[in-house]
Parts: sequence; C-alpha cells; structure tokens
Amino acid sequence: MGDPSGVGPEIIAAAWPALGKLCRPLVLGHPGVMRRAVTLRHPDARVVEITGVAEAEPSVLAVPCLKACHHDAADVPPRQIDPRGGQAAYDALVCAIELARRGEIDAITTAPLNKAALDRAGHHFPGHTEILAERCGMNEFAMMLYLPPCDALGGDAGLAAVHATLHTALANVPRELSPARIESVIRLSDSAMRRLQGGEPRIGVCALNPHAGEAGLFGNEEATLIRPAIRQALSGGINVVGPLPADTLMARARDGEFDAVVCMYHDQGHIALKLLGMHRAVNITLGLPIVRTSVAHGTAFDLAWQGVANEQSMIEAVRVAARLATPEVNVPQRNLPPSVKGV
Amino acid sequence: MGDPSGVGPEIIAAAWPALGKLCRPLVLGHPGVMRRAVTLRHPDARVVEITGVAEAEPSVLAVPCLKACHHDAADVPPRQIDPRGGQAAYDALVCAIELARRGEIDAITTAPLNKAALDRAGHHFPGHTEILAERCGMNEFAMMLYLPPCDALGGDAGLAAVHATLHTALANVPRELSPARIESVIRLSDSAMRRLQGGEPRIGVCALNPHAGEAGLFGNEEATLIRPAIRQALSGGINVVGPLPADTLMARARDGEFDAVVCMYHDQGHIALKLLGMHRAVNITLGLPIVRTSVAHGTAFDLAWQGVANEQSMIEAVRVAARLATPEVNVPQRNLPPSVKGV
Repeated sequence: MGDPSGVGPEIIAAAWPALGKLCRPLVLGHPGVMRRAVTLRHPDARVVEITGVAEAEPSVLAVPCLKACHHDAADVPPRQIDPRGGQAAYDALVCAIELARRGEIDAITTAPLNKAALDRAGHHFPGHTEILAERCGMNEFAMMLYLPPCDALGGDAGLAAVHATLHTALANVPRELSPARIESVIRLSDSAMRRLQGGEPRIGVCALNPHAGEAGLFGNEEATLIRPAIRQALSGGINVVGPLPADTLMARARDGEFDAVVCMYHDQGHIALKLLGMHRAVNITLGLPIVRTSVAHGTAFDLAWQGVANEQSMIEAVRVAARLATPEVNVPQRNLPPSVKGV
Repeated sequence: MGDPSGVGPEIIAAAWPALGKLCRPLVLGHPGVMRRAVTLRHPDARVVEITGVAEAEPSVLAVPCLKACHHDAADVPPRQIDPRGGQAAYDALVCAIELARRGEIDAITTAPLNKAALDRAGHHFPGHTEILAERCGMNEFAMMLYLPPCDALGGDAGLAAVHATLHTALANVPRELSPARIESVIRLSDSAMRRLQGGEPRIGVCALNPHAGEAGLFGNEEATLIRPAIRQALSGGINVVGPLPADTLMARARDGEFDAVVCMYHDQGHIALKLLGMHRAVNITLGLPIVRTSVAHGTAFDLAWQGVANEQSMIEAVRVAARLATPEVNVPQRNLPPSVKGV
C-alpha cells in the first residue's frame, strides 16, 4: 500500500480492474485507508478485510486487504511527512517480504513510501530496496528501472537502466564504485533481462565522467573501475560494451541498440527513463530470492488524494512482477529450450 | 571548420544552402579540406579561397574560405586523433575569435574539435568554451545546450540546459560548485533566454543529489550551495525555482513548465537534451563579449568522411547565432519596448 499519505492507496484502487487481468491481486496495508481510496477512485468496488492470504477472493468489485499496519495508519493526514505514514509503509513491506519468503504470495509490487517519513519512524534506510536486501540477507542487489515496449523506444523489447549506486550523495558515488560491484550489476542485468525478454540481452555500460573521461582528461574511473568490470563480464560470456558516454549511450539505447544500460548513479538512469516514460516505468529489485517490483514514482504529496494520480506505473509494475514470477508462461517461446512449455 | 579528421567540414558543406538563408556565411579553416568536403556533400558548389572577410561573396554555389590553419591541416587522415587536426581546429577558432572581437564578423559557429587531438597539439583546454573564455578574458561563462522549439517539447519556446560545471571529472563536481557560481549561471541563463525568446524566462534549478538529497539524507549541497544561490537570484527579480530532483525537473521542463534548466554537471543536462533532440541541439557559450554557438555533437570519427553525418545541428547552431547577433530583428516584437523596431 505504501505511505497512506501519498498516492499509493489511490493508484491501487484506480488500477484494480486492470490488475485482476494480470494476476490474483491482494493488498497488504490498512483496510480503512484502502476504503477511502476505493471510494475516491473505484467507487463500485468494496474492500474485504481478510486475515490470511488463503481467504483472498479478488474480483473487479472485491479488493481483499490483509491488515498489515497498526491501526493509527488510518489517522495519517493526506500529503504530509508523518512518522505513522512511514511506519505503515514499512509494516506493509515487511509483511509482504515474509509472505513472499514463505511462498504464500508469488511476487510483491510496492506503492511509494516517503523516505523522510520512514526515517522519522526510526527506520534508517534510503528506500524500499535496501530494506528488502537486508531482510532477505542479500549483499549483491541492484535497482533496475524498466520501461516496457512503447512508442518512445526504437526496439520492441523495452529498455532497462540498472544502477551501480543508488540512494547516495553524488559526492560518494566514485568511492562506492568498484570493478566487483560494476561486474555484479552487469551480471544481474543480464540475468534479469533474460527472464523478462528471453534471448541474449545487449548491455551498454555508462561512463562515470563526461565524454567517458575524454581519454583520461576528466577522470580515470573508466580505466580503473569500469573497463576491468566489463572485461570480466565479457569473459563470462555476457554481451556487454562500454564504458560509453552516458548522453549518447542513452540515445542509442532508446533507438533500440541496447536492451539494458548499466548506470553509475541514480540520476544517470532516472533522467533518461523518466523522460522516455514517466508513467510506464517499473522499478525492479534484482538479486533477491523473491520477486519485487514497484512503481517508479514517489509519494507525490502534491497530487495525492485528489483523484488525479496516474495508475499506469502500478499496472505496469504488476504486469512485470507477474512475468518475473512465471517466466515460463510469459517469455517468448522461441527463447526457451524445447522441453519447456507454457501452461 | 573544426577538426579536419571529423565531421565538421562535411556538415558545413551539407548545410551550406540552408546557411545562406540565415546569414552571410564564411568558413574559417583550410580551403583544401573544405574542397574535399564540398565534393562529398555539395558537389555543385566551389570553394573560393579569400584573404580577408571583406572579399567573401557567399552564395548557394560559392563557399568563401579564409585560410586560418597551417597547410598541413590538409594532410590529416580521416577519423584519427592527430595533433595536426587539433591544431587546425584551434587555429580556426583563434582566427574566429580575433575577427569577432574586431567586429569583422557578427558571430561564430564552431564545428566539433576532438579534445584528445587538441591536447596532443599542446593546447590543454577541456573544450572550445574554455579557449573562448580565456582569449576573451572572461571568468563568468557557462555552456548552454539549447533545443529550439520542436515536437518533442510541450512548450513553444524551446528548452535550454545551462551547466554550472562542465568538462570536469564527476568526483570534482561538488567542490567546483559554489553559491556564487550557481547564481552566476542562473543570471546568465536568464539573460540569454531573454535574448533568444523575449519575455521573462522560467528557470528551474536541478539538485545535485538524487531526490534533491531527500531532505538531507543523501547529501546537503542543496541546502548549503543551491538554495542560497536561488534566494539571491530571486531577490534580483529572476523567475527561478529549485533545487528540484533532476529526473522529474527534466520531464516537467520537456512538458513546457520551464524555459531553461540550470544543471550542476555535464551529463545532467546532456542526457536530457540529447534524448529530446540529438540532431537539433545547439551549444551556446554564455558570458562572452562575442556571439558563439556550436553544434552539440562531437567529431564523430566513426561517421566522418562517409557522406552520412547529419547537418541539422549545424543549421540550428547558425540560426541561433544569427538570432543572438541581431536580437532586435528576430525576437518576438511583443517582448520589446515600443520604441524598438525590427529592421
């Protein structure tokens, strides 16, 4: 459900009829908050409070909601940084992680949380991704922003940006990068794109510095950090090139030359993918033992609870989660060995 | 003419018929190189070597060329980093600067140089912009990337990205920023957009850190450097907001909410503007006593001298140079005081 103060509850409500065509959906959050959201965006439906996943009987008009948050989540005012909102988003996420790890649910799609509210609730994480990684005990993970196929893209297989660093000050980026980290992100990108699209993904790696350092004139991380990582990934059989200047690489990827771009920092990938498809982009956590996707936008307090927030990213995020959870059904058959069949 | 090894000479030749409709054009470079380029891209025309600006009689079929480079510029092989190519680009630029400062020409549009070739020629500058600034004795200058009005933009006045730092390693960006520098770039942006578009420009300023630092969780340069600069600019009457997260600011600007975006580093602006209009973007140096624009792409050695390089950015760069050189003719009349008339 995400932070009850933001757009999360209402985009779930608005997306609900579409979600039922993609999977068997279930909301983890607060039934009272979801009732308000459903009244606002999908008033023909009703919220059904359940006490276990097995009770969920989703339909266009029935929104099953497992109460995952403390009752004061219902008191959080709209459009505010409030520690109760941060706590509610945290509680819903932790509940989802436990259910997914036990196999009671096949995938998690998260609505946005507000990081300042999360911080005030005493949870000092930069975002969802790091909570998931910690609770799953994973060190090698990465955030992928994925834009499904659309008119803005020259290719027909979508485009992903995968981040070697994410929620960190720009000043810390160079020292947080290493050949091992960059190689790991290349491998995670390759593996995820195989599941999403089938076939051999074509991966481009961004330089850190402008003009890829212009042969060492503006920084040498291309030579010391990025090239060694690419050499290692190439020796592992991955189809990867770089480091390439980020500005031209993004335009080439948009035109269909690459399936995934490995980015050195948050805005390198986010500027491009948000320009190409703000409302359709999906956030995917790579490297977890469970499937997790998310909308690519934030809590958007300026828009929340006014009935106008766009639900498209939520629909796309659930579509991608369903595909990752059941790749044998959804990946193009040409890319599967002959013995594997769709069901 | 730029580096004779790259796409510069041929995009001038290909653009030539269009340039004559925008201004009275004249090439500063090497007549032998230009003859090869004209043969490749505009074979009906001839190159006329001249010894002074007053001799130039440009027409669709006559390309006046003032020899600004040493004769060995003609020997530089295509598609190579060669110090003679760097020297030729440098010589042409220096000649242009002197002619512009003496008032013999009204504006300069530069074709691309290769920074590694420039460096090997013994000129240790990160790019054209810094040579122009040094030779004009200016400390307060900035690089603007300007996309003229086009279908990719929601507004009807074009979009500019202006850079507070440019050709520097990403690791150096935080320490090269200061409130004074950022304020200066906001002022330069305001002033240039008034000349280009008329009216009061709407300026957005990018944050340095992801999510604008998320209230200080990932870096504090928004509070210590950027907000003070914006406050100062606001007190000077400039219409400016920020710092805003760069990824959403770029999408809002694309949709028409801002005329100019002040960027903290090279790729922040270049990723966005190259995605929005790689072949139409124009590079403008702000803060000089002379008018200088440039194509927004590099020497493109992979494409050069094969007859395929796109000349659109050269045409747009000359169009913008002509407008900046004679704003009273080209700026929409509604924005001028009543006593000023077009001629």
